[in-house]
Amino acid sequence: MSTPRTTTTAAKPKPYSFVNDYSVGMHPKILDLMVRDNMTQHAGYGLDSHCAEAARMIGELLEQPSADIHFISGGTQTNLIACSLALRPWEAVIATQLGHVSTHETGAIEATGHKVVTVPCPDGKLRVADIESALHENRSEHMVIPKLVYISNTTEVGTQYTKQELEDISAFCKEHDLYLFLDGARLASALSSPVNDLTLADIARLTDMFYIGATKAGGMFGEALVLLNDALKPNARHLIKQRGALMAKGWLLGIQFEVLMKDNLFLELSAHSNKMAAILKAGLEACGIRLAWPSASNQLFPILENTMIEELSKDFDMFTVEPLKDNTCIMRLCTSWATEEKECHRFVELLKRLVASTA
Amino acid sequence: MSTPRTTTTAAKPKPYSFVNDYSVGMHPKILDLMVRDNMTQHAGYGLDSHCAEAARMIGELLEQPSADIHFISGGTQTNLIACSLALRPWEAVIATQLGHVSTHETGAIEATGHKVVTVPCPDGKLRVADIESALHENRSEHMVIPKLVYISNTTEVGTQYTKQELEDISAFCKEHDLYLFLDGARLASALSSPVNDLTLADIARLTDMFYIGATKAGGMFGEALVLLNDALKPNARHLIKQRGALMAKGWLLGIQFEVLMKDNLFLELSAHSNKMAAILKAGLEACGIRLAWPSASNQLFPILENTMIEELSKDFDMFTVEPLKDNTCIMRLCTSWATEEKECHRFVELLKRLVASTA
Amino acid sequence: MSTPRTTTTAAKPKPYSFVNDYSVGMHPKILDLMVRDNMTQHAGYGLDSHCAEAARMIGELLEQPSADIHFISGGTQTNLIACSLALRPWEAVIATQLGHVSTHETGAIEATGHKVVTVPCPDGKLRVADIESALHENRSEHMVIPKLVYISNTTEVGTQYTKQELEDISAFCKEHDLYLFLDGARLASALSSPVNDLTLADIARLTDMFYIGATKAGGMFGEALVLLNDALKPNARHLIKQRGALMAKGWLLGIQFEVLMKDNLFLELSAHSNKMAAILKAGLEACGIRLAWPSASNQLFPILENTMIEELSKDFDMFTVEPLKDNTCIMRLCTSWATEEKECHRFVELLKRLVASTA
Amino acid sequence: MSTPRTTTTAAKPKPYSFVNDYSVGMHPKILDLMVRDNMTQHAGYGLDSHCAEAARMIGELLEQPSADIHFISGGTQTNLIACSLALRPWEAVIATQLGHVSTHETGAIEATGHKVVTVPCPDGKLRVADIESALHENRSEHMVIPKLVYISNTTEVGTQYTKQELEDISAFCKEHDLYLFLDGARLASALSSPVNDLTLADIARLTDMFYIGATKAGGMFGEALVLLNDALKPNARHLIKQRGALMAKGWLLGIQFEVLMKDNLFLELSAHSNKMAAILKAGLEACGIRLAWPSASNQLFPILENTMIEELSKDFDMFTVEPLKDNTCIMRLCTSWATEEKECHRFVELLKRLVASTA
Repeated sequence: MSTPRTTTTAAKPKPYSFVNDYSVGMHPKILDLMVRDNMTQHAGYGLDSHCAEAARMIGELLEQPSADIHFISGGTQTNLIACSLALRPWEAVIATQLGHVSTHETGAIEATGHKVVTVPCPDGKLRVADIESALHENRSEHMVIPKLVYISNTTEVGTQYTKQELEDISAFCKEHDLYLFLDGARLASALSSPVNDLTLADIARLTDMFYIGATKAGGMFGEALVLLNDALKPNARHLIKQRGALMAKGWLLGIQFEVLMKDNLFLELSAHSNKMAAILKAGLEACGIRLAWPSASNQLFPILENTMIEELSKDFDMFTVEPLKDNTCIMRLCTSWATEEKECHRFVELLKRLVASTA
Repeated sequence: MSTPRTTTTAAKPKPYSFVNDYSVGMHPKILDLMVRDNMTQHAGYGLDSHCAEAARMIGELLEQPSADIHFISGGTQTNLIACSLALRPWEAVIATQLGHVSTHETGAIEATGHKVVTVPCPDGKLRVADIESALHENRSEHMVIPKLVYISNTTEVGTQYTKQELEDISAFCKEHDLYLFLDGARLASALSSPVNDLTLADIARLTDMFYIGATKAGGMFGEALVLLNDALKPNARHLIKQRGALMAKGWLLGIQFEVLMKDNLFLELSAHSNKMAAILKAGLEACGIRLAWPSASNQLFPILENTMIEELSKDFDMFTVEPLKDNTCIMRLCTSWATEEKECHRFVELLKRLVASTA
Repeated sequence: MSTPRTTTTAAKPKPYSFVNDYSVGMHPKILDLMVRDNMTQHAGYGLDSHCAEAARMIGELLEQPSADIHFISGGTQTNLIACSLALRPWEAVIATQLGHVSTHETGAIEATGHKVVTVPCPDGKLRVADIESALHENRSEHMVIPKLVYISNTTEVGTQYTKQELEDISAFCKEHDLYLFLDGARLASALSSPVNDLTLADIARLTDMFYIGATKAGGMFGEALVLLNDALKPNARHLIKQRGALMAKGWLLGIQFEVLMKDNLFLELSAHSNKMAAILKAGLEACGIRLAWPSASNQLFPILENTMIEELSKDFDMFTVEPLKDNTCIMRLCTSWATEEKECHRFVELLKRLVASTA
Repeated sequence: MSTPRTTTTAAKPKPYSFVNDYSVGMHPKILDLMVRDNMTQHAGYGLDSHCAEAARMIGELLEQPSADIHFISGGTQTNLIACSLALRPWEAVIATQLGHVSTHETGAIEATGHKVVTVPCPDGKLRVADIESALHENRSEHMVIPKLVYISNTTEVGTQYTKQELEDISAFCKEHDLYLFLDGARLASALSSPVNDLTLADIARLTDMFYIGATKAGGMFGEALVLLNDALKPNARHLIKQRGALMAKGWLLGIQFEVLMKDNLFLELSAHSNKMAAILKAGLEACGIRLAWPSASNQLFPILENTMIEELSKDFDMFTVEPLKDNTCIMRLCTSWATEEKECHRFVELLKRLVASTA
């Protein structure tokens, strides 16, 4: 899968954007607290009261009071820190060929010295057999030792793990002395999806580390990296500092998570996001348009004809994932906590009109 | 020099903090624009109109329209990206033994594979003779090739470069095919200091790259990395992404610099910061207290007796730089755009009372 | 492909080994010169007269007097130095999924910070379309920039490039500003194969760097890394030293190449090696045994039944490449300059007897 | 200290060389065994009978049968592997400012991502107070964590540790959870020096890992890395392979150590080397020439006048360590197992004549 190219440009502001889930600022409640707190003096580097409170709230939701929680400003940074924290020089990551660490981080994991062993997973979900296959392929001292299993929930193509699937992967990892790391850049979307049967506490119980992304769930930026396995806890802050990820004004991250965790606001916002995607999905299906991957979350991947894309793009911005050979493209439509319902309906109506006119 | 330890704790909020220059949020004008802009849809990863405008404004101040400007969220991250951008595997950085890259980045530069060759510079300022000495010491293929000269302005100990000093270093670097990189985490404080004779345009003319820090100059976080040497420009964004420093909502950085650059707000704010430090400095000098390093900027390094520190700490938080052997410590007092003048006077008064009572 | 596991053990010395092409010492002419030269004082680190002479001889064979030639003690080391020499941090290698750098170097390339982008090439040979595909897949700043094309000749599965194929790859690389690097660990076997139409001079003309392996061509150890592209030449010795590959007694490498280059001894020895493999191949084909990959070089990959392997192993050691599902394995039979013809015939006879007895 | 520049050139072979201790081949007994063994088939990658036997012999000498022993082809490679094996990304090496890892490995340790924290040690020997000082300087999460203490015996300037000194360092390291690693490139010279009171068994008891160098003790090349601390043992071979240091024909290393360990040949050869240096030293002292560092081993560092150097260089090659300001240079004179006694006397006689003529 190629990197999507946005069709948004600064010079053409009118089309409504479904390009990604990080195209506007933050939830007003966060902004409110930032305004109120702005002139309060805080200790630096995440050693402030907001980070402490946010960490306490997360620990409670996880039912894991001994979890170590670190607030980091972006997903790629969190991924590279997590892998570097877990691995010795000869150890490697196992990920799907669609994994964010495999494709869209400009070699960030390799830049920390580690190979990403990829396995082909058509629906973006890693399964036990895939991990087994990666272990089977790498079994001599002339090869890396796969040690960390990387999964994303939701995945890079909008699919998500069931509780049973995660239980199976977790059991296999424990049995084979592998770390399980879950990239939760879109965890809120997964957890609030109608097909989800996982809780944060399940994820905390089944993984060695994971993170809860704020950037795509109502925050400004930031991921809460949760370390559960005691072996991963010492010196994490040293590594975070070394990689340039220890924010001087760390309370800005604490404030965001404090607000998002309160009354599960992050799940409420993501439920909206998923609902907006469901409107788009229903419209696409009603028009007989095929989706490249099945999704019950906030990312949809319709396969659209180029002529259709051209017409839609006059009013809406989408992401081009992959041009195919038959004058179609895999496109991405993304919704967020801020997506307006009327724009979703407007998109569906336009789509229906276009389909009708070409029938 | 050891890392300062703050005496601020969340549980004891009353003392006024002179611990650092990043203890409160951002200038209200930035917050205003963030609020107004919050629901506007933007392109991601710094490809938005705010970043474009901020870059244009900076380019104009620099009188270097062809400069490439990248907005990055922190100083350590900017330093490691800059060094990695400039150096081949066998090349090294030259820095003072007090340089931020030498001491307080948990080995961030070495983690990119490069040695930092340090030279002892008592006042924190690198001079041509120091660079010559580093080149002389590293002159066989069994040694690294020093290639990038790293300086900070203001330096880590509050001192700053004159125009002549920077001209000399720049000329030497050009002659010896060395890159000159200026860490500007506190550049605003340097430029607005009464002893300064440098302009942004001078710095742009004399260095190969430098950055303008916002974190300590009224911003929330962020540094504007300015690439001047054409050899450094290609693929900088690839490296920034790889190191996890390409913010999804990059316009948050653009907004800050747009506001800070407007009418040179960042210099106005730093002038205030320097003025507050001058009040403290006058008070310290009036009390006969020695400063470890001379400074006309927003960082002061008084050598205080431990008993005095204990008394002052009841009302004010300071940073302990280095415990000395004679029951004294090198302390750091730091002011910022948000420092209140009345607190500075209160500090001086308390100091005078304490000195009088022990006389 | 998994790493072959040898069935040789120190405790069971009788079976004749076809396990690999590095199971005995060096050609007697090298040993002779080493004995004669043993007490001569030489300059260290490859700055001696033997290295100079060997480099001169190679340069002449290449018809490239301006080539820079470095003698390095092993293949993995040469590969990692070559990639690190050529690449900036965000750049990557393109290789086949069977490439030595992709599979059997314990992540050596990733340990230098670079991703290896693999493309599936069933016969082990990379083609222009494969490179195009890797470029197509990596075309945004969220992805690495493929910059170095890695090929092996012969390949890891015994196949080899024609002149036309190498011309095509070379032209494509030049056009797309890619470095072409040829791993020549088994270059002597390729050049002396009956199907070869390439010369050393062709390879020097068509690549940016390559190496001539001695370990598998009559030497004790060592590879002659040839740098042709001027951009790769400066500071190669610095990098070689940094990676621990600048031998103190470097003339030991020079002596080997001096002897091997004289009258093209290395090609003569490899012709013998290929001839021995041809005897085995004719025998395997006569018995109707399928080869996993076609080969006219010194590595053969027969697919043998497990019962047959068990019987053969009483007299001959082979390498198990990959156990398949139908009670067969892909095995490797390897010949070298030292392989005895009578052992090849003995193998074929045993094979024929075993086949006849199971018919 | 700068890298010595040899005055030997290929074009001027006559002067006798005291430039280094690796200027001739290997002890004839090694060559004999290599010749006898040359056509024997062996398993690759150090899994052969010679390596097994050499490891057994070393284990016995160490009185540590559970030690893991790996044969690696050079000192820089061994140093970088040892450091990388021991350290997590945020951890650092402590070494003297004269340490080989600090100065003469082209940043090899930094290239594995780790900082070398240097402490000034005028005589090249690290002491407990130096380690304490390095720990004191690095005590916040904004700094690296020093974790591995690197010492050389003999040191880079010819000095050596007493048993009491090594006991003290070892006890301090154990108490502070630091690894102690001893670079033994010249360990044979140390152990056979008249002032030595250490045994191999002492060193094995007091360090976490160390190596015995062959290159400078009668071998062709190679170091035997001894891992004593169980935490360092797993996966060392993976790392050795990754760094390109797992020799295909590994038995060539085994053969060397087998011969050198037999009847302590390596100590006998080094005793000769030290004795030759003692002749030179006595001559230098008799002439009133000052040595930059005291040495009872095979390296001497006389401070010679430039005119004297010029005269001596007509007959003898020396190493220029450092040009000083008063028309003198620190030179290095190095002896080896192969140094001829008559050449030492000839050097002393020439020296005496020259001194007499200038008096």
